[in-house]
This record gives sequence, C-alpha cells and structure tokens, in this order.
Amino acid sequence: LFEGKIENASNKLVVGLVGLPARGKSFLARKLAYYLNWMEIQTTIFNHGEYRRCLLGSRQPASFYDPDNTDGVKTRLSVARLALKDLLKYLNDGGQVGIMDATNSSLRRRQMIEKECARHGVSVFWVESICDRESVIDDNIMKVKMKLPEYSHMTPEDILEDFKKRIEFYKKAYTSLDSTSTESNASFMKIYNLGNDFLIHKPQGTLVMRIVRFLMSVHNRPRSIYLSRHGESTYNKHGKIGGDAGLTESGYKYSVALKKYIEKQGLEDIKVWTSSLQRTIQTAALFDNARVRTFKVLDELNAGELDGCTYEEIKVNRPELYELRSKNKYYYRYPCGESYKDVVSRLEPLLLELEREGDLLVIAHQAVCRCLLAYFKCIPQDQLSKELPYLEVPLHTVLKVTPGIFGCKIEEIMLGPDAVNTHHGRPDSATPPK
Amino acid sequence: LFEGKIENASNKLVVGLVGLPARGKSFLARKLAYYLNWMEIQTTIFNHGEYRRCLLGSRQPASFYDPDNTDGVKTRLSVARLALKDLLKYLNDGGQVGIMDATNSSLRRRQMIEKECARHGVSVFWVESICDRESVIDDNIMKVKMKLPEYSHMTPEDILEDFKKRIEFYKKAYTSLDSTSTESNASFMKIYNLGNDFLIHKPQGTLVMRIVRFLMSVHNRPRSIYLSRHGESTYNKHGKIGGDAGLTESGYKYSVALKKYIEKQGLEDIKVWTSSLQRTIQTAALFDNARVRTFKVLDELNAGELDGCTYEEIKVNRPELYELRSKNKYYYRYPCGESYKDVVSRLEPLLLELEREGDLLVIAHQAVCRCLLAYFKCIPQDQLSKELPYLEVPLHTVLKVTPGIFGCKIEEIMLGPDAVNTHHGRPDSATPPK
Ligand SMILES: Nc1ncnc2c1ncn2[C@@H]1O[C@H](COP(=O)(O)OP(=O)(O)OP(=O)(O)O)[C@@H](O)[C@H]1O
Ligand SMILES: Nc1ncnc2c1ncn2[C@@H]1O[C@H](COP(=O)(O)OP(=O)(O)OP(=O)(O)O)[C@@H](O)[C@H]1O
Ligand SMILES: [Mg+2]
Ligand SMILES: [Mg+2]
Repeated sequence: LFEGKIENASNKLVVGLVGLPARGKSFLARKLAYYLNWMEIQTTIFNHGEYRRCLLGSRQPASFYDPDNTDGVKTRLSVARLALKDLLKYLNDGGQVGIMDATNSSLRRRQMIEKECARHGVSVFWVESICDRESVIDDNIMKVKMKLPEYSHMTPEDILEDFKKRIEFYKKAYTSLDSTSTESNASFMKIYNLGNDFLIHKPQGTLVMRIVRFLMSVHNRPRSIYLSRHGESTYNKHGKIGGDAGLTESGYKYSVALKKYIEKQGLEDIKVWTSSLQRTIQTAALFDNARVRTFKVLDELNAGELDGCTYEEIKVNRPELYELRSKNKYYYRYPCGESYKDVVSRLEPLLLELEREGDLLVIAHQAVCRCLLAYFKCIPQDQLSKELPYLEVPLHTVLKVTPGIFGCKIEEIMLGPDAVNTHHGRPDSATPPK
Repeated sequence: LFEGKIENASNKLVVGLVGLPARGKSFLARKLAYYLNWMEIQTTIFNHGEYRRCLLGSRQPASFYDPDNTDGVKTRLSVARLALKDLLKYLNDGGQVGIMDATNSSLRRRQMIEKECARHGVSVFWVESICDRESVIDDNIMKVKMKLPEYSHMTPEDILEDFKKRIEFYKKAYTSLDSTSTESNASFMKIYNLGNDFLIHKPQGTLVMRIVRFLMSVHNRPRSIYLSRHGESTYNKHGKIGGDAGLTESGYKYSVALKKYIEKQGLEDIKVWTSSLQRTIQTAALFDNARVRTFKVLDELNAGELDGCTYEEIKVNRPELYELRSKNKYYYRYPCGESYKDVVSRLEPLLLELEREGDLLVIAHQAVCRCLLAYFKCIPQDQLSKELPYLEVPLHTVLKVTPGIFGCKIEEIMLGPDAVNTHHGRPDSATPPK
C-alpha cells in the first residue's frame, strides 16, 4: 500500500469514522478537524465519497453499494485503499491526525485499515455514530443528501428512495463496534443519538482523550453564539494595552445597545459569559445577574511587563520587542506575559463548555475574540499564525455566529456608538515562521 | 423523609455509586470527593457501611444481605433512608455535592432515591463500577476488606468466604443500569474494569461533565508522582518574586542531585513536566529531552504589577496590598495578576492528565506546588483557603507522592545543597473569609 516508514508514528493518529450513511459522520469529522487544527494539531479529512466521485464519476446507482455486487465491492475496496494510502502519506509528510471519513461499516474493512496502520506504527481510534431515530435520518437526507452531485438530476422523492436503498445495502454488511468481539483490542467510541449515550472502549493517550472529551460536547441543536468585546474603556481611549480600566461614557452606551439588541433576539435561555475584568463585567451589568458567569480564562492576552503601555511607547522604548512581535505576532510572548498561542491553549477547556451550551453571549477582549473567531471561521492550521492576530473585531460590534452543518455563519452587527479603532493591521514585514 | 425545600437545588447534585461489593465504589467516591473539594465544590460522602455499623454494630453475618431475609431488607432500607436524609440535609445546609456510597444495586433502591431527590429538585447522577475479573475482586477483598471492623476476629480464609457469600446475596437483587429499561431517563455512567470501558448516558450540565471527565482519568495502577520546585534561582536569592530568572550555582547543583535521585528510583518510563519558565526548564536540563514536556499552566502564580518586587518592597511601597494579601492569601488576586484560587482553576485540566499518567516528575514553582500538594493531601474544602497558601514546599527537596486506596503517602526527600528559604508563614492576623 505504502512502503515508507512513518517517523514519529507514536505521536500520530488515524481517526476512523464508522456508521451507516446519513449518521452525521462527515459532520463530526469536520467539527473534529476544525477543533484540532485550531489547537495546531495538523489534521486532514480523507472522504471516501469524494475519492469515489473523482475516480468513478458521481452517478453510481444504489446497487453499487450492494455487498453482493462483487464489482462494486472490489471498486469500493480500491477507493478505500487509495484514500488510506494518501492518509498515510499525509502523516508521513508531517500531518498529525488523519480522519478517514467513510462508513467503515464492515469488520473486514476495519481490519484492513487496522492492519495497514499497525504496519506503519500508527494507532487507530474509531468513532461510530449510531442513530435509531428514523425521522432524524429522513431529515438528514432531505437537508444534506439532496445536494450531493449524484442527485442533481433527480426529484426529492426519488432521492429519498434511492438513498434509503443505499442505506439498506450498507446494513447488510454492517457490524457495529463491539468490545466483546474480535475487535476487543480496538480503541473506539460510540456515539448514540448525538449527545445522548457514549460508549468508550480502551481510550489511550492524551490525544485520544482530548478527542473523546470534544466529541462528548458536540451537539447540533440550533443556536447562536454572540461574540462581543467590552464597551470602549478609558484605556482604549488612551491607546493603552492591558490594565483593568472601566468603561467610557460611550462604552456605557454600548452596554445599553447590546442589552437591547439581545432582548430583540427573543432568546429566553441565553447565557452571558464575561471575563474577570471590569470592562466586560460593566458591559454585562444590565443583564440579569443569574444569567451571567465570569471566567478568568476569558481575560485579555496578558502583556506582562508591557501592561499599561501604548503601542507608541513600546515602539519608542522597547523597539526590539516591537519588532519581534510585529514579525511573529501569533507566537510572540510578552516578557512575563502571553502569546496568542498561549491564549488559544488556555481557552481550550472553555471551548468544550461553549460547544455544549445553547444560545450564548460571550463578552471578552480583542485578542480573546480573535482566538474564538478563528475557531468559528475554521481557519486552516497553516494559516492560523498569519490570520488570527489580524482578524478584525471592532469595538461596539456583535459577531453573531450560527453553527451549521458545514461551518458557521458569521454576521457582523455594528451597534455603535462610535468608538476608537484598536485594530493594528499586519505589517508587510510579517512573515510568521513557526 | 425530609421536608424542607432545598434552595438553589438546580446547582446541587447527588452522585450515587452503584455496584456489587469490592468494586472500588468507595475508592472512586473518595477520589471524586477530594477532587471536587479541591476545586471548592463542597462535597461529602455518605457511606452506608458506616451508618450500618453505627446503628447495628459491626458484626452482621453474610445472611444479613440476603434479599430473602425480610428483616435484613427492612433494616437496610432504613439505613439507606437515614443516610439519604442526612445527605439532603447537607445539601440544604450549603453542601453542593452529596455522594451516596453504597451498592445501590437494586432497581427499587435507586428508584426510591431518584424519587426523594426529585421531590427536592435535586438531580442524581449514577456511577456504576463493574468488574468481571475474579482475581481483581479477590485481591480487593484481601487488601481492603480484611481490615473491616466486622472481620477483626476472623481468619483470612473465613473472611474471603464470608465476603464472597455477601457478594452472592447482592447478586440476587442486582440490576445493572440500563439505558433501554425503565431507567432510560436516568443520567449515569458505567465504568468497566476501571479505565477500560465507559458508558455514559444522558450526561447533563457542566458539573456532571466534569465528574465524567475526571472519573474517565482515574486509575489505580501503582505509581509515584515526584513533585519538586526548580533549583534555587537568582531571584530566589535576592528575595524577588516572579520573573523568569535562571538558576544559581547552587540551583544547578540541585538539578544534578535531582537527576541522580530519579535515576536511582529505577523508573524506566518516568515522564518529566516543567513550566514554561527558565528555572524549571534548566532544572530538567539533564533529563532526556524526549521525556520532558513544558506546560505554561505550570508557571508560577502571576504577581501582576508586583512581579519582580521583594516582599520587603511590597511591604514598604504597597502596604495596603501587603495587608490585604496577608489577611486572605488564598483569594487575594495581585493587580493584573492571579490568586491561589486562580492557579487552582488553571491547573484543573492538567490534573486530569496527571491522573492518567504513570510515574511522573513535576518540576514547578512554590505556589503551584502548594496547589498540587493540597490536592494530594486531600485537604478538606473548608480548610483550603487557610492551609494551602502556607504549605511548606522547600527548595531542593522532592515530595514523593504515592497514591493509595485511602489517599496519598507523601515523603519528603531533601536533596540539597542548601538554598534560601522562601517560605512565608501564616501571620496571626490571617482570618480568611470566603
Ligand atoms: N450523531 C448524529 N446522528 C444523527 N445525525 C447527526 C449526527 N451528527 C450530525 N447529524 C446530522 O447529520 C447531518 C449530516 O449528515 P452527514 O453528511 O454528516 O452524514 P454522513 O454520516 O457523513 O453520511 P454519508 O455516509 O452519506 O457520508 C446533519 O444534518 C447533522 O446535523
Ligand atoms: N473500578 C474498579 N474495579 C475494581 N476494583 C477497583 C476499582 N476501582 C478501585 N478498585 C480497587 O478496589 C479496592 C477498594 O475497594 P472499595 O472498598 O472501594 O470497594 P467497594 O465497592 O466500596 O466495596 P463495598 O461495597 O464493600 O463497600 C482497591 O483495591 C481499589 O484499588
Ligand atoms: Mg459523509
Ligand atoms: Mg465501599
């Protein structure tokens, strides 16, 4: 299949999805990939459907998936082997996690993958999605599968029928993961009806545990996350960074506007999160106390020794630091302070909580909002250091983030009043190496 | 049972253990209670065995547990109701989590508890421990049950026989938690062979998820955690706090002594964790690089604006802050810096990793070591703020922590050479309110 040896294989992982069609496998694969990439764990999805369409064209009849159709079986095996080969190559070229997004529903297919991965010293973690609610499946088909290229020429009724036939064929050769069977040595998790039940078998290592914790937090109920910075602070006005200043007159007006805006959304159960700093707490002051929670991990990037300075002062008094940071803003850590990357890692545990929540208003700070926004925007791992520290998050503006099946919709709502601009664009000289 | 209304009931939780005797229920209950208390979630264990011994004396024959012994059944039910009553009272008096440490192995018993708790608006989370390895059970009985007061007069053989009879009687009335049964609405987790398999059903809310994550990290394989501060730094020598200074001559000597000491322990797989600061990294410099990992969450308590000052300078220049901190060292947060409590919360995610590990050397800082030590010492929640900031963690000394069934054994090994003393004792005026 692939002959090279994989270096550092014990730090790499193959995540294999398992499940019948329309069980949210690709949805989970994408969520997981965005999450891992955000933490700079280089991750790529290998989707069998895409390989199949590329190789065979998009219009395969349902009978292609019949396990008794020997031609179909053979072809599908070669698709699987090709995708696996690419995945292993990717790990060999520096990737850390490869996600095999396919049904992987037969025991034999999984054994083939386990064997190939073992040969290269890489372990496999299986994630099976099980859904026994017929109406959810129908809904998935109508919402997602209708748009598949293979169905572009058909009526909704025919698509539903065809896709259900496909599922029936898959069921014939489907073996669910089972800790008491031949697969007792495999490491896996099973997700029943997204968020309801989880079975975790032999989870091994920190990376697998992080994946388990994350997937235990994911849901797909409709909701929005409203991301906002605090109202303008007196430090903002004077161009100073850090500190624990209160709001200006204009900042207070924003807190009023924000309250009104959220009220108009008519969300009864919305929760409000702030940092531990005065300016976010004051911005949330008009909300019902019982709905507000304060998190120190939402505090602004710590500028360490330079806390309380202006950009101008830093430029004049500490030109070497100014230079260093301009060149590599994402990784640059202030003396006795933090880098953007540090902020991302401290936000990770909170992100799991955020995934579990329903409607949520998060009132935080420029750097913290940038870090969260990079997650919602699904910025690819190799762009993070270049893009994240320059994302625009203006004062007195709400970013309404609505998670969907293929990523988040992000709307920008300027509430005003006018406030100073605290954005510093990317200098031309910035060439962020790792 | 208990008639008062419980205030704030939606923030409270009853954790009910489930399982046959000798399945590590009490072990899990204690681990969980220490963990929650450390995070200032007030938790108490209500152990049916202790109630039984108190009420009935300690010598009940195995037949007491026969579900066909109507007297025994009645008596055991009244024990359960009494314990539950105390638990609910405890929640009513300000407790946040009450752990019901009992077999709770019959459906009827669990339904009684669910009903009573629902009546007071408190939810129940069940934690079932299942072990099907006969040799592990025998081992548990020999190691732990031999010491029960009821067995003080018997030979090991007779104890093993009697305890196994007790287990057989429990099996007669044992119904495992089952998501497809009458208990489908219950919220629970099942732990199979500690660490091997987990089943999680309808986990609800942040507190339950924290408990799930923690219990998924617990193991009982033998290991030790070696806790050490960095070698003496130039800042230590000058009495300064914070900063990112390197080691003194004497500090370097400690790093040599530490390496030798760990080598002598003969632990092939030991891992080394440091903070992101120079003094811990330098202390670990002699260890094989591949074994060392750096964590920013292990960094010293951030003194914010007072970083780089000496205690004397703070006393003279910022007497009000010095006063405030002396009065309430645990909760006091330095301007733009951290409190001890802040350090505890940022350590929480790492603690889960620490629980999962085997032998481990953690090289950190005075305040961070105090926080970790408070966890290993199982300091009760109401003593934390008073005790934790004054725990003695001298320089050039290893604390060898060996987790056991009833808590940790902690040995102090002074390796030298001599170093300055950085400990500041508790002033008489310290009366820490919350
Ligand atoms: N665990 C789940 N169970 C059922 N539906 C889910 C689950 N997770 C996500 N969904 C929903 O499934 C739909 C997406 O289906 P998706 O394309 O991910 O399925 P799939 O399993 O990849 O199907 P296929 O095998 O055809 O590729 C979305 O509507 C999403 O909200
Ligand atoms: N999940 C587990 N399965 C089996 N043994 C365990 C488990 N967790 C801990 N142990 C071991 O069990 C022993 C402690 O038993 P413990 O007293 O906690 O059992 P118990 O279930 O509370 O028994 P009883 O019902 O008699 O109170 C220890 O040796 C501990 O290491
Ligand atoms: Mg898919
Ligand atoms: Mg017990």
